[in-house]
Amino acid sequence: MHIPQALQYFEETLLDRGVALRRFRDVRAATLRLTAPLSAEDAAIQTMPDVSPAKWHLAHTTWVFEAFVLKAEATGMAAEYEELDPHYHYLFNSYYEAEGPRHPRPQRGLISRPSLEEVLDYRKHVEAAMEALIGNGADDEAWARIAPLLDLACHHEEQHQELILTDIKHVLWSNPLRPAYTQTMPKEVRPAPELSWTSFDEGIFEIGHDGTKSGSGFAYDNEGPRHKQYVHAFQLASRPATNGEYLKFIEDGGYSRPEFWLSDGWFKVQAEGWTKPFYWQQKNGDWQVFTLRGQHGMNSAEPVAHLSYFEADAFARWSGARLPREAELEIALAGHGNPARANDAASGALNPVAAGGEGLAQLYGGVWEWTQSSYAAYPGYTPAPGAIGEYNGKFMCNQYVLKGGSCFTPPGHARATYRNFFPTDARWQMTGVRLAKDV
Amino acid sequence: MHIPQALQYFEETLLDRGVALRRFRDVRAATLRLTAPLSAEDAAIQTMPDVSPAKWHLAHTTWVFEAFVLKAEATGMAAEYEELDPHYHYLFNSYYEAEGPRHPRPQRGLISRPSLEEVLDYRKHVEAAMEALIGNGADDEAWARIAPLLDLACHHEEQHQELILTDIKHVLWSNPLRPAYTQTMPKEVRPAPELSWTSFDEGIFEIGHDGTKSGSGFAYDNEGPRHKQYVHAFQLASRPATNGEYLKFIEDGGYSRPEFWLSDGWFKVQAEGWTKPFYWQQKNGDWQVFTLRGQHGMNSAEPVAHLSYFEADAFARWSGARLPREAELEIALAGHGNPARANDAASGALNPVAAGGEGLAQLYGGVWEWTQSSYAAYPGYTPAPGAIGEYNGKFMCNQYVLKGGSCFTPPGHARATYRNFFPTDARWQMTGVRLAKDV
Amino acid sequence: MHIPQALQYFEETLLDRGVALRRFRDVRAATLRLTAPLSAEDAAIQTMPDVSPAKWHLAHTTWVFEAFVLKAEATGMAAEYEELDPHYHYLFNSYYEAEGPRHPRPQRGLISRPSLEEVLDYRKHVEAAMEALIGNGADDEAWARIAPLLDLACHHEEQHQELILTDIKHVLWSNPLRPAYTQTMPKEVRPAPELSWTSFDEGIFEIGHDGTKSGSGFAYDNEGPRHKQYVHAFQLASRPATNGEYLKFIEDGGYSRPEFWLSDGWFKVQAEGWTKPFYWQQKNGDWQVFTLRGQHGMNSAEPVAHLSYFEADAFARWSGARLPREAELEIALAGHGNPARANDAASGALNPVAAGGEGLAQLYGGVWEWTQSSYAAYPGYTPAPGAIGEYNGKFMCNQYVLKGGSCFTPPGHARATYRNFFPTDARWQMTGVRLAKDV
Amino acid sequence: MHIPQALQYFEETLLDRGVALRRFRDVRAATLRLTAPLSAEDAAIQTMPDVSPAKWHLAHTTWVFEAFVLKAEATGMAAEYEELDPHYHYLFNSYYEAEGPRHPRPQRGLISRPSLEEVLDYRKHVEAAMEALIGNGADDEAWARIAPLLDLACHHEEQHQELILTDIKHVLWSNPLRPAYTQTMPKEVRPAPELSWTSFDEGIFEIGHDGTKSGSGFAYDNEGPRHKQYVHAFQLASRPATNGEYLKFIEDGGYSRPEFWLSDGWFKVQAEGWTKPFYWQQKNGDWQVFTLRGQHGMNSAEPVAHLSYFEADAFARWSGARLPREAELEIALAGHGNPARANDAASGALNPVAAGGEGLAQLYGGVWEWTQSSYAAYPGYTPAPGAIGEYNGKFMCNQYVLKGGSCFTPPGHARATYRNFFPTDARWQMTGVRLAKDV
Repeated sequence: MHIPQALQYFEETLLDRGVALRRFRDVRAATLRLTAPLSAEDAAIQTMPDVSPAKWHLAHTTWVFEAFVLKAEATGMAAEYEELDPHYHYLFNSYYEAEGPRHPRPQRGLISRPSLEEVLDYRKHVEAAMEALIGNGADDEAWARIAPLLDLACHHEEQHQELILTDIKHVLWSNPLRPAYTQTMPKEVRPAPELSWTSFDEGIFEIGHDGTKSGSGFAYDNEGPRHKQYVHAFQLASRPATNGEYLKFIEDGGYSRPEFWLSDGWFKVQAEGWTKPFYWQQKNGDWQVFTLRGQHGMNSAEPVAHLSYFEADAFARWSGARLPREAELEIALAGHGNPARANDAASGALNPVAAGGEGLAQLYGGVWEWTQSSYAAYPGYTPAPGAIGEYNGKFMCNQYVLKGGSCFTPPGHARATYRNFFPTDARWQMTGVRLAKDV
Repeated sequence: MHIPQALQYFEETLLDRGVALRRFRDVRAATLRLTAPLSAEDAAIQTMPDVSPAKWHLAHTTWVFEAFVLKAEATGMAAEYEELDPHYHYLFNSYYEAEGPRHPRPQRGLISRPSLEEVLDYRKHVEAAMEALIGNGADDEAWARIAPLLDLACHHEEQHQELILTDIKHVLWSNPLRPAYTQTMPKEVRPAPELSWTSFDEGIFEIGHDGTKSGSGFAYDNEGPRHKQYVHAFQLASRPATNGEYLKFIEDGGYSRPEFWLSDGWFKVQAEGWTKPFYWQQKNGDWQVFTLRGQHGMNSAEPVAHLSYFEADAFARWSGARLPREAELEIALAGHGNPARANDAASGALNPVAAGGEGLAQLYGGVWEWTQSSYAAYPGYTPAPGAIGEYNGKFMCNQYVLKGGSCFTPPGHARATYRNFFPTDARWQMTGVRLAKDV
Repeated sequence: MHIPQALQYFEETLLDRGVALRRFRDVRAATLRLTAPLSAEDAAIQTMPDVSPAKWHLAHTTWVFEAFVLKAEATGMAAEYEELDPHYHYLFNSYYEAEGPRHPRPQRGLISRPSLEEVLDYRKHVEAAMEALIGNGADDEAWARIAPLLDLACHHEEQHQELILTDIKHVLWSNPLRPAYTQTMPKEVRPAPELSWTSFDEGIFEIGHDGTKSGSGFAYDNEGPRHKQYVHAFQLASRPATNGEYLKFIEDGGYSRPEFWLSDGWFKVQAEGWTKPFYWQQKNGDWQVFTLRGQHGMNSAEPVAHLSYFEADAFARWSGARLPREAELEIALAGHGNPARANDAASGALNPVAAGGEGLAQLYGGVWEWTQSSYAAYPGYTPAPGAIGEYNGKFMCNQYVLKGGSCFTPPGHARATYRNFFPTDARWQMTGVRLAKDV
Repeated sequence: MHIPQALQYFEETLLDRGVALRRFRDVRAATLRLTAPLSAEDAAIQTMPDVSPAKWHLAHTTWVFEAFVLKAEATGMAAEYEELDPHYHYLFNSYYEAEGPRHPRPQRGLISRPSLEEVLDYRKHVEAAMEALIGNGADDEAWARIAPLLDLACHHEEQHQELILTDIKHVLWSNPLRPAYTQTMPKEVRPAPELSWTSFDEGIFEIGHDGTKSGSGFAYDNEGPRHKQYVHAFQLASRPATNGEYLKFIEDGGYSRPEFWLSDGWFKVQAEGWTKPFYWQQKNGDWQVFTLRGQHGMNSAEPVAHLSYFEADAFARWSGARLPREAELEIALAGHGNPARANDAASGALNPVAAGGEGLAQLYGGVWEWTQSSYAAYPGYTPAPGAIGEYNGKFMCNQYVLKGGSCFTPPGHARATYRNFFPTDARWQMTGVRLAKDV
């Protein structure tokens, strides 16, 4: 079977049309559950260029199925696909240059029409066509081409599920009324365990996803090729840094002492007036933290979240430690991480909870953990030609890798080889820090 | 009877509570008719800092009754007014420093909540309190204080009725789908009459509103005092300049020849790449114009609209003419203008229509006409103390006066002494030009 | 005799070639005296877009003679003029669109070559050609055309003499060492007289320069035509406001109370963090003022200087007064001002000194006095065609008129009809305020 | 002997005071030779924030000796050092937070005083004190502390020698007259050899400087520790890419085809309108290149220079190749590079010349070669505490490593382990590209 270059790490069980249909329906339904609490206005506005409206996420994830499956893979299909509205191609393409011109990203909030209702109709329209295709609308040869793309598009939609939560948090926080996304499900409070350190020996390690092992599940092209790295001895903290620990950094003058900061970070601190994590606010001397459940008193035991790379790095220096390297965290995740018990989106917490348990806790879920590794191509990596090749490769510059997933990540989405990446000043993501040390 | 300084030009008929109630209800209902075609999303977004969302206009016009009547004039009222939500004071204050801090103007589109529905409830809440007050909730002494404020707040709401149309036009135009506000009511097409000139002799003229004549109706404080000006002989064009005439300016290289432009205007032309009026677009060689009825072929006979001061002035120089002065247009409006037959919002045209009739046509309605007069205080003018004094006075700088009203102006709102004003680069308003000449 | 439209107010005595030669030499020598204290580096750098390097002023004033006389009026000349370097036309044109493309204004400080020495050679080259022309290089017909242009170019160079002092003050102040332009000539200190008010009756007044009276001396085109204005009764303060008076405004919270400020001014105060006049600085609780003699303790009796329009206007409101109108100051200057005793550049003070004497003191010299009149065309004014017409006309927008000259103005340069103008936020000019009141 | 942490790679021969004196005098004299052709104005202006005036370089390199030796290491000195002017500490500190506040980098061109002459006096003042110290002004214990700092400061001054040439090139190019730094020494033209490829096997390699080997010469702290890396098999091009090759990329639409560009690079191309290398200009259809010898016709055989990382990367993709990794170039430099025959500043070419010879040509000199490796800490690296620790460590973020030196690099300054680094959009440096490939 031929699998396109960008998709070689493909979940072959999806070749079973029944399995594929179930997977497709599950992903699509999960997205709607996330947007259900939002009004048409909540879903329409854009509070900064990095944020996309929920309506746009709903439409764009649909457009990916339309553009990369329904329209791109027409050969061998029983019926030609008809677009609901040809303008949607312009409005809902995100960044694929090969797909032609598109609506500028910072202007996604300027589009009141199509309405939320019309976008939900668009979802149904594409879903009907996809279901027909999965059923009997594609012959077996076409299906073998389509199944990997469907796999990719489902994982793509899961990424946007995390972004929907991330972005709506910024939208609600931008409102001086500080409204909540949901007020149900009170949050259990438990203390954070003492910090301890786990040591790893030096040696040659294999890193990255091995595309040939069918049992290892889906992976994006940027996770391969699996390759050797020489890793020096290191230590990892037993859990992510907490709000309480970060508060000590603040109280020790962390934001006013240049000796802890990268030069670019110190510039940012001064230019933007940073004095605390993004969603923190001091009220009558007490620290409050904004969450999807509204604004609450700061919980010292919870992992500190919404740190930029600059803040994570400065905190690490102040701590007498450093940020981990990508390979170090991947080794730990592969050997010690248990995604099944993660504080991910399935936990319903919608906020990082205090890590528990023995050894290396909360490697998965909670907060994405910054690494000091620049997001770069693995040896032998080449992006696929065409639009699909733009998925990951063209961002390999001036961004840093994060590992492990967060409390906003859909269950099953993160894995040891997963490479998330953001610029060094990004603060609206669910990002935190686990300290590392040389031995 | 004591009338506060800022409100001396007051429609005394409103002292009759029945008249006042009718006036109040009419104004409030007219606003809702304008927003009826808008979805919650149309009413929520803000497409540039100058534009306010329709939802904000609905709330702010309500807040003015709440802040300047219900809360400010409590003495002599039967029952204390209770706010629906104390946060609204922060959200819906526009620019009144004396009323305390407020939500920044460029961020009015970042507020998804309160929802449109909640804002409509806010309107009803304030309307009920106002109706009670007008009925018997205020004793006669209080009512004498309140009636002028009610008069002011009704005229204020009419100003925002014009802005609702102006702003929603920008919102819809910002959408690449170019949707229409309404598609009903096709527009009659008639030719524009030949341009002719009317001459006026020099002499001393009285300009501005005389606050003592009760028959002359409402006026803002900035329209007085009535005072003498020495006006030199001048000529006025019989009608506003048309699209067809403006097209000749474009085709003669108007936007690429600095000799027609003020220095600041030429800078703007180059910095912003201006080559045509704001809502014009060339498609396959044909000119189209965006209107509240969608995008249509350009009609040469219609008044050219959405010109900045810079464009109006450059066009006038190219024409061998000049912009009128404020006094010149006021003299013409007072002597020749007939507001009753105006192409105003009551005409339902929602676009300037070709001027008709003899003499000085369409002095009222159609397009606001730029004057070369900087918006400045009349001799003897002093703003009232407190928030009400901020209504007009603090904007008397770097703006230019416009006269006569437009097709977006509510009927009865414009008058000869009315002074509209905008900065020299404003293009989203319904603004055009009537040429003038020295004799 | 034919005088070009833009130059109708021409000093006919200059038709005498001997008089013209003396005038030319005097003006040119005066410029060099001003730049003598400057090093090559002082004369080269540009500390903000509004500031021009002294080297550029030296070259540009020369270019005006070259472009508007030597090259433009070749007919009737004995010998063809040869440019020293054809690139200078591009480098030293200021803003004349009709003269073709030119070096961008904000980049005048990026030109290290030609060196100061080469620019001084350029001056000599043009001076030699001009002297030849004045002598016998132009026949009488040509001379009649040239003499008015020479008159204009000499007055133009005087304007730049004021700018040389204004701009070098900004250059030196931008240096944290706060060096002085000159340290000679200590400044006499005397107290400011009590403020009193002079009243003027209302009536029709004639304003502006009458081009036909040969005795009245040179005038720019924007000073005419002389025309009637109806002026209402007013009062003028006996002297400009002092540092001491302005300090009271500051101490009364002037910069933190929006009720005194125009809306645009208040925006500027907050955006730029204004808390004091531009060249003031607080050091250990004492106020210091930077002058061309270095930084010194603030003198309460001296006129407050370097106020923007916004600050002058806010101070006037705080004082319970207002800014004068252009006509009001012109009437005062024409009737009461005595340029001969002015605190102008010939006084050598290089800073405004405390006003003295009876009645309306220091109408000339000291500080340019802001008016509330927008810089606009007088009735009947039309700019000349071509480059010369760009001298004044194209700036008639968003600037406000100042009257009377300053301590930086060359002697004899200011007059009652003189119209200086700057934007409302300009602070680097020698600008102050004389209060006015309605009667 | 104790060597401070940041300086462990120290040229111990400098412990001999005679050797140290010779080295100090050589470096100082070389700097003056570079600035000799510049006028006071050439040396004063700053044409963009990244560029520093030559006068500032002259002063800052002197300040380093003053701040880090004369003032910091006073113990054991015969006489206390006296500053020439205490303000210089503020003016000429570059970026050392630990040394206190300093003049903002983008405003280095706003300082006309001290003059060039005064700065040259400052150099002599510090040189006299340093010579006294090297002679007998420091006892042996002090000298053991000082010698490594002198070593560092001499290498520091060599870095600024390269920057003086780099920055004055930008200064002269910013002048529309396009003046030359020098017109002597015509440039030999020879063809570029055919491109060939050299292969390297995979394996574990040691990278970085080994601080313990005294024979290997000076190194900065960021070059260590020497450590193991697993390097995969790769190929390197025999020489840097040429102007001729880069022209083919341009002619093939390189600057208008997003498929070759990183996402951030493509954004930059569009935002800045990039269509060619920084110093190229098309004139009547011919390509010209600006050099320190003025503007000349483009030479196809010469290495293409002044490429940003984005351009180097896009060109590599277009070529079907990739940028080398840091370890790959270091392995090649260590095994094949011959600094003695380099096209460095000693060659006097002042421009990259066509590479010659067998095998891997021009690894040293010509152009700095971009690598795809983000500038990051080597395993075990920690910056020294205090100001010296800011030299390199705080820039390890969002910059990419360059190797091999350029035609502007002083002879002997570059070495295999040397790590130069710049942001991805820097174009004013002497930067080019050598292609690499996977095997």
